[in-house]
Amino acid sequence: MAKQKVVVTRKFAESAHKLLSQEPDIETIQWESDRPCDRAWLLENAKNASGIILTLSDKCDEELVSAAGPSLKVIASVSVGTDHVSRDALKKRSIRLGYTPNCLTDAVADLSIMLTLMAQRRAGEAMQAVLKGDWPNMPWTPFLMTGPQITGSTVGFLGFGRIAQATLKRFISFGIKRALYLTSTPGKPSKADYYGMVKESPIPIESAQGWEQLASESDVIIVGCNLTPDTKHLVGTEFLFKMKKTGVLVNIARGPVVDTAALVKALEEEEIFGAGLDVIENEPNIEKDHPILRQPRCVVLPHVGSATIETRVQMAEESVKNLIAGLKGDVMVNEVEL
Amino acid sequence: MAKQKVVVTRKFAESAHKLLSQEPDIETIQWESDRPCDRAWLLENAKNASGIILTLSDKCDEELVSAAGPSLKVIASVSVGTDHVSRDALKKRSIRLGYTPNCLTDAVADLSIMLTLMAQRRAGEAMQAVLKGDWPNMPWTPFLMTGPQITGSTVGFLGFGRIAQATLKRFISFGIKRALYLTSTPGKPSKADYYGMVKESPIPIESAQGWEQLASESDVIIVGCNLTPDTKHLVGTEFLFKMKKTGVLVNIARGPVVDTAALVKALEEEEIFGAGLDVIENEPNIEKDHPILRQPRCVVLPHVGSATIETRVQMAEESVKNLIAGLKGDVMVNEVEL
Repeated sequence: MAKQKVVVTRKFAESAHKLLSQEPDIETIQWESDRPCDRAWLLENAKNASGIILTLSDKCDEELVSAAGPSLKVIASVSVGTDHVSRDALKKRSIRLGYTPNCLTDAVADLSIMLTLMAQRRAGEAMQAVLKGDWPNMPWTPFLMTGPQITGSTVGFLGFGRIAQATLKRFISFGIKRALYLTSTPGKPSKADYYGMVKESPIPIESAQGWEQLASESDVIIVGCNLTPDTKHLVGTEFLFKMKKTGVLVNIARGPVVDTAALVKALEEEEIFGAGLDVIENEPNIEKDHPILRQPRCVVLPHVGSATIETRVQMAEESVKNLIAGLKGDVMVNEVEL
Repeated sequence: MAKQKVVVTRKFAESAHKLLSQEPDIETIQWESDRPCDRAWLLENAKNASGIILTLSDKCDEELVSAAGPSLKVIASVSVGTDHVSRDALKKRSIRLGYTPNCLTDAVADLSIMLTLMAQRRAGEAMQAVLKGDWPNMPWTPFLMTGPQITGSTVGFLGFGRIAQATLKRFISFGIKRALYLTSTPGKPSKADYYGMVKESPIPIESAQGWEQLASESDVIIVGCNLTPDTKHLVGTEFLFKMKKTGVLVNIARGPVVDTAALVKALEEEEIFGAGLDVIENEPNIEKDHPILRQPRCVVLPHVGSATIETRVQMAEESVKNLIAGLKGDVMVNEVEL
């Protein structure tokens, strides 16, 4: 039997490449550079491929599927989202789609906690003061560099999926007093209960009646929802100006859920206390003079939510497993129903 | 009866001043500036005082006690440590000493978690990259800005007091697998068990046999011990070079426990992954060109461990309560046994 060709658009963790190389019936074509895979290279090399392992930066559309030809059976995406993949193009050719939705839950939940504390405790501002050499001339006063404390807070979740619930699990150990969440069915209890907390918890966990309640009653807002036409700019001027003046906003989901101009205004006018963003509209094109970067109470990170060694290794290994399962007609670790 | 004079060396939270003003028998002399209290002012105004509320920046010694004269009954220090107070000077005159050791446990434990995650997740480096405008030219690669993940870690505590245990309580919710601690009695179980975790915990919590075990087996080291001749520079070259290359060091205790020059070397030579410091030797005199500030994997904060609004309010209120109790001969919230 001829070997099946698999195109790999990135250099991943060694352990993942090793998994692939152990398959006797698979021949791998590898994009070798550290830069994102060149489109022309991909289209050319996809020809007669049985499978493609790709990432968020590789568009998987009609063009790519056609370039591969009838041999193509599996796309294995090393990602949580699959917006870069045309489901229609795959569906009509019965091409299976694997993805890695769950590997990064812990990494992103950890980052949500970090960003919350950084926003409350003015970590960015405090670090900059030290880096600029201001510490020697910063005499201690009782309220120097103080921010709100997480103990006793109400934490509000915009979106209440796996990452939000993993974040809440951590927050409970910090002594928060209450959690609120807003889903697409306001006021109704969340059906998903990944850690058994919604049913049974040491603190009240309530479904908010709407965004107004979420904004006005929370000390911390964690944006963890999907980006849809309904959630785009959901956190805008109205939302931000309804928040407590001591409230902080954290976005670990998708940039456009938050209206950046409105956020800058809310920070400038001290309508909220601070913010922590791992994602932002128009990323990565955030230039040095972007107005958000002039807000000392806003921490901006370059989308590193899942950037842990362990998570990236796991994502790559799981993608290889999805690919192999797809080629063999077995059950994938995680497959998108098309 | 003549009013008792109380000298207050700082402007604290309003609620604390209000508590004091509600006492009909107390007359308050207040240092009004936001700068630390002037020594000459303090010595002059202490004369005939019954009580003094002071902070870490006000030395309480024989000179001050003598300046006050025989009326002095109580010193209420708005602080956890009392190194600035001469116990001998107070003891021989039977002056009582109140302090506020427990108010800040949660605030400092929160900061320990924040600094751990910042050190692991390269928060300082990532923030600087965005601030410098590097994000648009930072193409995604699978290991871009990755760091070790806290899940499954062993967390080692140098010192295992209240703050360390409160930090551990939080860490457990992040899915760590094991905790180690080193106290002045290596290998012996901690007598103090503030949250009932030492006796009963979902993960193993073990007393380390010595610093070598602590350094070599931990993925995270939290320095939370007192500064004594024995702990000064305990975290030096030997300790740091015994740590895992993926290990991170966090100091929320006292600067001199860590040998800064050795830490710079360990970071430069990538013997450890990163560090998070809320305290550092010679603080606050950390100039812009200090070698530690050139280490991208080291986050340095200007001693903001207890800097939350809630904690500072509570410390001030508790100090006033200590003072009033001291004047009335009642039990203080927290009193140092002299």
